[in-house]
Amino acid sequence: MIIKRLFGRSFDQIRPFKIVRQFTSNSDASILISMGNTMVLCNANILDGVPDFMKGTNSPWITAEYSMLPSSTKNRMTRESVVGKQSGRTHEIQRLIGRSLRSAFDMKSSGEFTIKVDCDVLQADGGTRCASITGAYLAIMETIPFLCKKYSIRYDKKFEKVAAISVGLLNNNILLDMNYEEDSNCDVDMNVVMDSAGNFIEIQVTGEKVKFNKEKFDLMLSTAGHGIVKLMSYY
Amino acid sequence: MIIKRLFGRSFDQIRPFKIVRQFTSNSDASILISMGNTMVLCNANILDGVPDFMKGTNSPWITAEYSMLPSSTKNRMTRESVVGKQSGRTHEIQRLIGRSLRSAFDMKSSGEFTIKVDCDVLQADGGTRCASITGAYLAIMETIPFLCKKYSIRYDKKFEKVAAISVGLLNNNILLDMNYEEDSNCDVDMNVVMDSAGNFIEIQVTGEKVKFNKEKFDLMLSTAGHGIVKLMSYY
Amino acid sequence: MIIKRLFGRSFDQIRPFKIVRQFTSNSDASILISMGNTMVLCNANILDGVPDFMKGTNSPWITAEYSMLPSSTKNRMTRESVVGKQSGRTHEIQRLIGRSLRSAFDMKSSGEFTIKVDCDVLQADGGTRCASITGAYLAIMETIPFLCKKYSIRYDKKFEKVAAISVGLLNNNILLDMNYEEDSNCDVDMNVVMDSAGNFIEIQVTGEKVKFNKEKFDLMLSTAGHGIVKLMSYY
Amino acid sequence: MIIKRLFGRSFDQIRPFKIVRQFTSNSDASILISMGNTMVLCNANILDGVPDFMKGTNSPWITAEYSMLPSSTKNRMTRESVVGKQSGRTHEIQRLIGRSLRSAFDMKSSGEFTIKVDCDVLQADGGTRCASITGAYLAIMETIPFLCKKYSIRYDKKFEKVAAISVGLLNNNILLDMNYEEDSNCDVDMNVVMDSAGNFIEIQVTGEKVKFNKEKFDLMLSTAGHGIVKLMSYY
Amino acid sequence: MIIKRLFGRSFDQIRPFKIVRQFTSNSDASILISMGNTMVLCNANILDGVPDFMKGTNSPWITAEYSMLPSSTKNRMTRESVVGKQSGRTHEIQRLIGRSLRSAFDMKSSGEFTIKVDCDVLQADGGTRCASITGAYLAIMETIPFLCKKYSIRYDKKFEKVAAISVGLLNNNILLDMNYEEDSNCDVDMNVVMDSAGNFIEIQVTGEKVKFNKEKFDLMLSTAGHGIVKLMSYY
Amino acid sequence: MIIKRLFGRSFDQIRPFKIVRQFTSNSDASILISMGNTMVLCNANILDGVPDFMKGTNSPWITAEYSMLPSSTKNRMTRESVVGKQSGRTHEIQRLIGRSLRSAFDMKSSGEFTIKVDCDVLQADGGTRCASITGAYLAIMETIPFLCKKYSIRYDKKFEKVAAISVGLLNNNILLDMNYEEDSNCDVDMNVVMDSAGNFIEIQVTGEKVKFNKEKFDLMLSTAGHGIVKLMSYY
Repeated sequence: MIIKRLFGRSFDQIRPFKIVRQFTSNSDASILISMGNTMVLCNANILDGVPDFMKGTNSPWITAEYSMLPSSTKNRMTRESVVGKQSGRTHEIQRLIGRSLRSAFDMKSSGEFTIKVDCDVLQADGGTRCASITGAYLAIMETIPFLCKKYSIRYDKKFEKVAAISVGLLNNNILLDMNYEEDSNCDVDMNVVMDSAGNFIEIQVTGEKVKFNKEKFDLMLSTAGHGIVKLMSYY
Repeated sequence: MIIKRLFGRSFDQIRPFKIVRQFTSNSDASILISMGNTMVLCNANILDGVPDFMKGTNSPWITAEYSMLPSSTKNRMTRESVVGKQSGRTHEIQRLIGRSLRSAFDMKSSGEFTIKVDCDVLQADGGTRCASITGAYLAIMETIPFLCKKYSIRYDKKFEKVAAISVGLLNNNILLDMNYEEDSNCDVDMNVVMDSAGNFIEIQVTGEKVKFNKEKFDLMLSTAGHGIVKLMSYY
Repeated sequence: MIIKRLFGRSFDQIRPFKIVRQFTSNSDASILISMGNTMVLCNANILDGVPDFMKGTNSPWITAEYSMLPSSTKNRMTRESVVGKQSGRTHEIQRLIGRSLRSAFDMKSSGEFTIKVDCDVLQADGGTRCASITGAYLAIMETIPFLCKKYSIRYDKKFEKVAAISVGLLNNNILLDMNYEEDSNCDVDMNVVMDSAGNFIEIQVTGEKVKFNKEKFDLMLSTAGHGIVKLMSYY
Repeated sequence: MIIKRLFGRSFDQIRPFKIVRQFTSNSDASILISMGNTMVLCNANILDGVPDFMKGTNSPWITAEYSMLPSSTKNRMTRESVVGKQSGRTHEIQRLIGRSLRSAFDMKSSGEFTIKVDCDVLQADGGTRCASITGAYLAIMETIPFLCKKYSIRYDKKFEKVAAISVGLLNNNILLDMNYEEDSNCDVDMNVVMDSAGNFIEIQVTGEKVKFNKEKFDLMLSTAGHGIVKLMSYY
Repeated sequence: MIIKRLFGRSFDQIRPFKIVRQFTSNSDASILISMGNTMVLCNANILDGVPDFMKGTNSPWITAEYSMLPSSTKNRMTRESVVGKQSGRTHEIQRLIGRSLRSAFDMKSSGEFTIKVDCDVLQADGGTRCASITGAYLAIMETIPFLCKKYSIRYDKKFEKVAAISVGLLNNNILLDMNYEEDSNCDVDMNVVMDSAGNFIEIQVTGEKVKFNKEKFDLMLSTAGHGIVKLMSYY
Repeated sequence: MIIKRLFGRSFDQIRPFKIVRQFTSNSDASILISMGNTMVLCNANILDGVPDFMKGTNSPWITAEYSMLPSSTKNRMTRESVVGKQSGRTHEIQRLIGRSLRSAFDMKSSGEFTIKVDCDVLQADGGTRCASITGAYLAIMETIPFLCKKYSIRYDKKFEKVAAISVGLLNNNILLDMNYEEDSNCDVDMNVVMDSAGNFIEIQVTGEKVKFNKEKFDLMLSTAGHGIVKLMSYY
């Protein structure tokens, strides 16, 4: 079976990648990231103080919020503020983004402040959580000079680049960086977060329709790894 | 007293105006409107059916939702879906937008469907409700060819152009199209919605800090009128 | 076309007006105001302290809450505490009442306290927001002796009387102080808040069904002005 | 110990009782009931249909909602629609009112409709739940002619009068029909709902501060009984 | 008419009673109580501090929460955290449990701490509120040694045993300790909370389907009394 | 460094495992599962019908709800129904459980019904999501005879056993089936869901404190695999 992919991509090619820096100007950093037709606005703000459970640690807290504009999808979604609560999917995704960012940036002992990244999906075509992680990483990177100045911090060590990508399995075919249609149909769905030293930060694999074995898993993981290297070459 | 305005504007000049059409592609129409530093994404979607109170009228329902991204403001706002409800201000604004659009588009007897416009503020610097009304008008205009096709409608009469603008009074000085700083300090705050035939759709004036008399009111209203003519010359 | 109005009113006559002072006794002031069949209980309470954004200003905060009893309308409404939130209309109205009262009472520099007025509609027949503003003004006036005593304030200047009235346009006929039936059918709907010196505090005009021009607007506004003078003659 | 009671009452005397019929006019029946300083507006509405669990029974459903206006109490309460939910106390009271009314009116087999009584406390000085039950009973009685007409019902049997009263025990003294101050201090608190044939509908006794024995219980209950007979003599 | 009861019980017999102490280990006390097929997990926790209204009294606060697992009933119930609020019935029951426990344990002047008992119904077959009260009493008794140690308290006086039981009236037959089926059908429903000295803490009687007289009431109450004596003989 | 584990376990040993079948009797199946001190009640109910998005597929829907009793943890948690919503963690976990169960049971084309499993944590000591998955699998297995009968289904193929286990990395030591204390301190946290044929259903790995490489990942995964084989040997 031959799968025809948008943009004439091969199975292991990522979608066209683009970032606009300082897309808006009221936040400490603002990144508009596009992966194919998926477009996420990632704005980072540095806020004073930390949540209660971090008080006294002399370390910052990094967290994220994720939301899809109601009109970001083909079929308009109901606005979560109208429903009165965030969906389970939203909770799951913003917890993943926050966790990944905290692993990405080891800022221990650099003072008590919060970095909050808002990932607002303007247009959705699959892979919004991965684009959010990559975009949020880039937004936080932009805030670092301000952080250093504002809180008199010096980060001696280098922060490795971080990126996230999805890989799917569809009729035993590997598909890197799936769009919405591919994602909806795939049998196994994997999201991988890695750094530029080749370390893993998070791996989530779900046998949505079929179970999978170690061999397939390893193949998907290495495809993801190649995609992430490619992605990182753009920034 | 001489007031210095951003962009070197005189008291009766509107801010730089810009629109990007089809900014996103999943909605029936998508307008990114900018007035100075205020930037609102206005996406229109045509939905089947109408609310219960419109059933049996053979007429469409036009409505709007308004929201500010948490990071659209200088000081990050709390996300309304996290609070669990929309604020009073949000309710007030989206009711104004919906009302204005229903006056703008007389579509009586053209069938039962809903036009829903999402006005999501990406960057806020005053006048977001006015930019939303103008942007929403433009978005609905873009949907009309689709509407006509989808519901086999023929609109014989012309829809007049619609736009909205704010005018303020600050120490007895008139200020057209205020930005956030001017808006926060003004004594009297007026929002006007008009059409290209010079008719009024909505006028709201509030003596925030001082009361006002008929003379000042008339002056503010005619300044608004000139601004709206200028605004309409751009589209 | 001849419009028959309840109580045999002419087009520019206000409805029978009545107030009962101290209707209830647990609040600092209690006014039961009736305009025709519309009946609103306006209770004012003086509370210690001010909201955060007013702290350090040495000035009081004036605010209002508005609610309709479920059985105040011909068709019983659902109770907002059962729905779990206040409607958009409620938000819009209570923001208008609060704004008008803050303009009515310039109490700057007289200390940090809050005047909270509850406007509970016992019976609704149009014009509830206007009756609420007028009733709330009267309730606050009643609290002033207590205020002066409690916070050792002396208000040298006179507070002008304040009142609000609606005017509508129905088939090009002006209708002052509309009841529910008139309000539901009118083409243009205006609410005006004025003081006894003839100054405006708030004007809101909406072309519900038809747009309007400056001439009609001026006529409606002056009719409103006459109504407000009449209204004020009763207190 | 001698207890001084408001209105110069003896321990077993009820407070001044007053009702205003048709206090408001938009409901099917409207009773403003006062017991001393407690004042409750009880409005009954007949609604078509019944809840799901009553469908197919050919019998009506009787239910009540209870609410205190925020300014009904000496210290202003927060509005429940602002909190976003009804308190536990509100739930408990409205369930009691509904239950009592369903016992009061045996309307089995007279068709599927709902009688909803809104009990809105305008002024609170103890005994609001009892006043609500008595007032709601009176409001429903007023709706019966309309009911019979609207649903072509003929009620052959007489509906016994219903009333509710509180009795307390304070330092071993019995206190009939307690006001707020007495209620807050009493050791044992009893609420009794009875009909004019001397039957009980509901008895609730709580040892708030001290436990109680059968003898005291019997004394309280018979005092309640006398109070209810007196109360019923007024309507 | 002869009523056949589960477990071959006579009309005035309680159901098989069982308790498991320390059923779980993370709370200060944990009692799994069974009355027939009704099974409630009552866990007590001692928390520092008291609610605001108790501050400065040097006395503890005792309170309870009640909840039914969604799968505790024959027809699965919706989870209250999914609905987003606790039902009226839940509020009513947990207020009853808390009130009864505060009467049961007079701990005045023994310091400011809170005893919170969670009554989670694992299996429901009628009488869950009574089982909760009895189980919560037993759980608090288990915490007393810890309390005395933690807050250096010495309770000289004995705490009387406390228990609760239901009695119903069905076709003029008395039924002690009703299961779900009996409870759903009974005409009069009574819940009684007593101590081992024969004092009453709370009595609630409701004429669900028929009203009742003093004679029936007294009979039900004495049957409840016998049931409670029997129940207390097991612990 | 030597890590001392509860129950004298070696690094790759699972905790004592126990199940009680039919722990409660009102659900279609009820499993009380214990892994060490973690104890979860998994009750499965078969409900008629499927959610809207499954209608017309002639296939069942399998879903789960997860909740921790407030007193299941060492420090009492606030009840989610009191907060008014489920936490992000709850959402994330119940989505994982549901997804795993849908992969576990391929019931396509066997009719439209819903299997809902309630996973209520009675006692929490780490690994509650894994215990919930294993327990929910066992509960659904118990419902299959009823399912087959009720919906006249014949499942020809065997359903593989399913189980879930956690593995952690702490100071480079692998720890299988972590308890709460181990889980709170570990650097990398993995949850694995597998079937008895050695296929994977879900893998989630998070570098909570340190990133990880492929080698460590493979070691953790194979340790998880051994644990799951052991676990499955008990049922």
